[in-house]
Amino acid sequence: MGASDKYPPIRPGGSLILAWQIRGKTVLIVGGGNVAAGRLLNVLEADAKVVLVCPHKGLSPEVSHRIFTQSSTPQILYKDKEFDASDLTDDIAMCLTAIDSPEASTRIWKLCKEKKVPVNVADVPSECDFYFGSQHRDGPLQIMISTNGSAPKLANLIRVRVAESLPANAGQGCLNVGKLRRKLRAIAPGSNEGPKRMKWLF
Amino acid sequence: MGASDKYPPIRPGGSLILAWQIRGKTVLIVGGGNVAAGRLLNVLEADAKVVLVCPHKGLSPEVSHRIFTQSSTPQILYKDKEFDASDLTDDIAMCLTAIDSPEASTRIWKLCKEKKVPVNVADVPSECDFYFGSQHRDGPLQIMISTNGSAPKLANLIRVRVAESLPANAGQGCLNVGKLRRKLRAIAPGSNEGPKRMKWLF
Repeated sequence: MGASDKYPPIRPGGSLILAWQIRGKTVLIVGGGNVAAGRLLNVLEADAKVVLVCPHKGLSPEVSHRIFTQSSTPQILYKDKEFDASDLTDDIAMCLTAIDSPEASTRIWKLCKEKKVPVNVADVPSECDFYFGSQHRDGPLQIMISTNGSAPKLANLIRVRVAESLPANAGQGCLNVGKLRRKLRAIAPGSNEGPKRMKWLF
Repeated sequence: MGASDKYPPIRPGGSLILAWQIRGKTVLIVGGGNVAAGRLLNVLEADAKVVLVCPHKGLSPEVSHRIFTQSSTPQILYKDKEFDASDLTDDIAMCLTAIDSPEASTRIWKLCKEKKVPVNVADVPSECDFYFGSQHRDGPLQIMISTNGSAPKLANLIRVRVAESLPANAGQGCLNVGKLRRKLRAIAPGSNEGPKRMKWLF
């Protein structure tokens, strides 16, 4: 067996799939239609603060519901207006647009590039630092299915199949293992020597 | 049924799982051990260029193999040295570190924050803009399992189960649907009116 057989071959053409940490940071969403509604839910579930820019008449019922039924500590700041450059303030950590105008989208994309803000322009792959996929969620367990733009609806079917293949308590199982790991880390020999990986931890 | 019943509830505590597009961009990897080997494979498969900084003696056999058996158009630029600030050049789009020194890691994290470069410091969640998860890949189909840090080894078991639940030809199926979609888009009424989503496309 040669050295090249020992290691996994490189299969080009993929994305780098990441679990982005956006808790407490601010995400700018431009648009308020059905695509924006999906983005908004994703971002709210990742505990981000949201600034949503869209004239009132462009809000879908779901987006409208999310904005106007917030608790006394609102997670969404709503701006009833068209986007302009002043909306891309220095605290914006990420920008998602879902509007119909390709010209306006391209303008936002360029502004984000200038400010090094990661951005996704819905349905314009060339103006995306990242794509979304189809997602299954069960507590701390998140499974994301991407077909790299080939077959989004097939990704949804695969998501259903994947969900069905999991035990009903998979999310709770992850929670329980997480609690046990934290306890073990606290009492493990060497646990006070910094963040080195402990191979025997499950 | 009230309005609040019509829409999915918000389940906080998740990550924003993204398919990052890094093709042709440059990723800086600091470190050359076993964790770096995994990162390197992920990044190479996403078609990025890599600058890898690590003294020669710190290279794992796998990382060494990837560096020293490259084709005539190498994807990895190897720097046989310890990291210093000059390695974080303006073309770096992302930084991944996997080194043993928490002090050096924190220094890199801070430099990346100053330059607005997304960064992952292995095993230090507080110094990560994003986490990695366990991944299944079949052509254009990529499935990522994250337990949000609760149970990484359980994520691996779930990955195996998920892979077994898929038909053997799932990746090829995605490829075929992708080809068909492109053909349909080209001949569809309204396909020249910009990138609007066509609901009937599968």
